Amino acid sequence: MNCVDVLIVGAGPAGLSAALYLKRAGASFAIIDKSAPGGKLLNIAEIANYPGIQPTSGFELANALVNSVTSLGVEIGYGDVSSISKEGDKFIAKTDYEDYESLAVIIGTGLSNVPTIKGEKAFYSKGVSYCATCDGALYKGKDVAVIGHEEKALEEALYLANIVNKVTFIVDDDVINGSLTMVKTLENKNNVEIIYNGNVSEIKGEAVVTSLVCNNEEIAVSAVFPLSGEKSASAFLAPLGLKTKNGFIPVDENMMSEIPGLFAIGDVVDKKLRQVVTACSDGAISSTGVASYIRKIKR
Amino acid sequence: MNCVDVLIVGAGPAGLSAALYLKRAGASFAIIDKSAPGGKLLNIAEIANYPGIQPTSGFELANALVNSVTSLGVEIGYGDVSSISKEGDKFIAKTDYEDYESLAVIIGTGLSNVPTIKGEKAFYSKGVSYCATCDGALYKGKDVAVIGHEEKALEEALYLANIVNKVTFIVDDDVINGSLTMVKTLENKNNVEIIYNGNVSEIKGEAVVTSLVCNNEEIAVSAVFPLSGEKSASAFLAPLGLKTKNGFIPVDENMMSEIPGLFAIGDVVDKKLRQVVTACSDGAISSTGVASYIRKIKR
Repeated sequence: MNCVDVLIVGAGPAGLSAALYLKRAGASFAIIDKSAPGGKLLNIAEIANYPGIQPTSGFELANALVNSVTSLGVEIGYGDVSSISKEGDKFIAKTDYEDYESLAVIIGTGLSNVPTIKGEKAFYSKGVSYCATCDGALYKGKDVAVIGHEEKALEEALYLANIVNKVTFIVDDDVINGSLTMVKTLENKNNVEIIYNGNVSEIKGEAVVTSLVCNNEEIAVSAVFPLSGEKSASAFLAPLGLKTKNGFIPVDENMMSEIPGLFAIGDVVDKKLRQVVTACSDGAISSTGVASYIRKIKR
Repeated sequence: MNCVDVLIVGAGPAGLSAALYLKRAGASFAIIDKSAPGGKLLNIAEIANYPGIQPTSGFELANALVNSVTSLGVEIGYGDVSSISKEGDKFIAKTDYEDYESLAVIIGTGLSNVPTIKGEKAFYSKGVSYCATCDGALYKGKDVAVIGHEEKALEEALYLANIVNKVTFIVDDDVINGSLTMVKTLENKNNVEIIYNGNVSEIKGEAVVTSLVCNNEEIAVSAVFPLSGEKSASAFLAPLGLKTKNGFIPVDENMMSEIPGLFAIGDVVDKKLRQVVTACSDGAISSTGVASYIRKIKR
């Protein structure tokens, strides 16, 4: 059993930023991930909106974030957390490797996309993207498709409509579950086509995406944004009795959840905008929140 | 008169990040500053906690943030805003150079420190710092002083006590205006000395700070954190009738203030942690908030 004040679960941008701040604050902590550090960045071809860093590959930015902490002597551990429980003031995290006892836990496990469409996984980051704010600018003047039926898909479709040549909004349901105003705005755009009850069976391409098949009809597009399959990676917290919004964790201004000592940062948080820079900001904020929480329970 | 959808006032990290995101979103906007872009970064010797960038000078990081937007073709304009008024849905910003009409305004004017101690200005960033979270790690094993009487000073003193050799907490009042628990924690630290009714008349040094004079007694320190003179740069918004908390602007999850269309980002916001990365995150979030606000009023 490893005993630390703080356990960070997940070494994506949010967790790495928390580690950077905790290390500089002289805190006792461990950071673990079930995979290589860097999180989703490792699968992203280009990141062009991290302020202060010129457009670079996700891999390079991940490397830079990792260097920010390893250069301070932080070791990033391995561990796939199977469960977290709380006894009194102490959290016990069990992993497939080592177990951890801590006074606070910071969850930075992000999102996991479950690809459901043929070709979706193969073309990820080659035309398939889960974030218009991140990748929309790559498709200026081109035709793209958005798949979904929730508010987020609506917002992303509107965002893209201002940039690209044409947006085909494929509603994978008979109704859009979002604000009527936004639906009307979208309907009034003359470069948006809305297809209700759309069933996308395949995303096609060669090096990059060139088309998709919807209701047995092929539509030429340069990019596809499938926004229905995104899930937060928070299921392992269920034993704690944590209430989530569709799996996303509500937090206060210190990034603490409703469970004292359990913090959440990055994409797993219930929030408006999921970006590398917002994740890093969450990590920084959680470090001061955690320090203040631990001071209180140690007194 | 320049007419744009969005006017960003202030080209520090927050404003530059907002500009990066708005440009990529294809928005109509202008960004202006009354001074060189980069904000407070320009006066900071070393920044070691911006995730993904190895420790560098404030000037270099400012340059990198500026490059992130100028490389996209954004021009950073000059203008010292004297007043902002709102007529219907339109904001009018008057500056000493050009005036702007816009549907939304993003305020990223940050803080202005008013140095009141002899030597405070001369040794800024040479031992004088306004941010323990930023600079505390530079003084590991050394003696430092914190001056103030508010919660923030308490927090910074506690933060430093875990890192440095000794903290002299100079309370420039007869009482600390913060939580009793925190005051007790501070009192119980054996490397903290608290001096009530402290009057610091001078900060001394050669290349860097070596001592300060408090109540006519010289105390050897490597760093001084004067935390009483920090003011938010929001006074020019008074004609709008904006309610602030000691000058700091409360915002919602989209970074919008209580005045529809008036957004605030970075250090000027009423919030917990003021860092370059949290400022950049605010800028990113405001860009989507502003887009959604403008969609609503344009329909």
